[in-house]
Amino acid sequence: MKTYDAHSAEAQLKELPGWAFRDSGIEKTYLFENFIDAFGFMAKAAIYAEKANHHPEWSNVYNKVHVRLSTHDAGGLTDYDFQLAQQLEKCL
Amino acid sequence: MKTYDAHSAEAQLKELPGWAFRDSGIEKTYLFENFIDAFGFMAKAAIYAEKANHHPEWSNVYNKVHVRLSTHDAGGLTDYDFQLAQQLEKCL
Repeated sequence: MKTYDAHSAEAQLKELPGWAFRDSGIEKTYLFENFIDAFGFMAKAAIYAEKANHHPEWSNVYNKVHVRLSTHDAGGLTDYDFQLAQQLEKCL
Repeated sequence: MKTYDAHSAEAQLKELPGWAFRDSGIEKTYLFENFIDAFGFMAKAAIYAEKANHHPEWSNVYNKVHVRLSTHDAGGLTDYDFQLAQQLEKCL
């Protein structure tokens, strides 16, 4: 499976505002109005992730959700991560 | 508001298996069969947390959920954290 580095990920990241390459993955911190909105986003995203069988590493504190995507089986960033990132953007 | 340190938290922690005092808060890592179970737990817990207006710091990777509870307004561990920990145990 093709993996991306910081350079080869550039074109894909241009279409994903707020996402940045870090440590062989991509990351974004989402800020919401409150916990209900933050967890609502996570609930939608969780169903997408499960359906795609590709899951985020993520954390939440109140209105903040930090997401990290990387493909464990491939040892790095793959198209699965970009696809999930695009889905997460649609969950907003 | 009364805050607890590692020593004064001992009695309460005895009733909360898997929870440990750390950095002025309490923490536990929950392990589930899969992502659906892990996120199902989080969904239940999220509603309890919002209802109590006391929210966890938590992270999830596939079947693992790490939870940290501390009371920001009090600058440490309070009864609110023990109450939420008890509710989380009921979400299993």
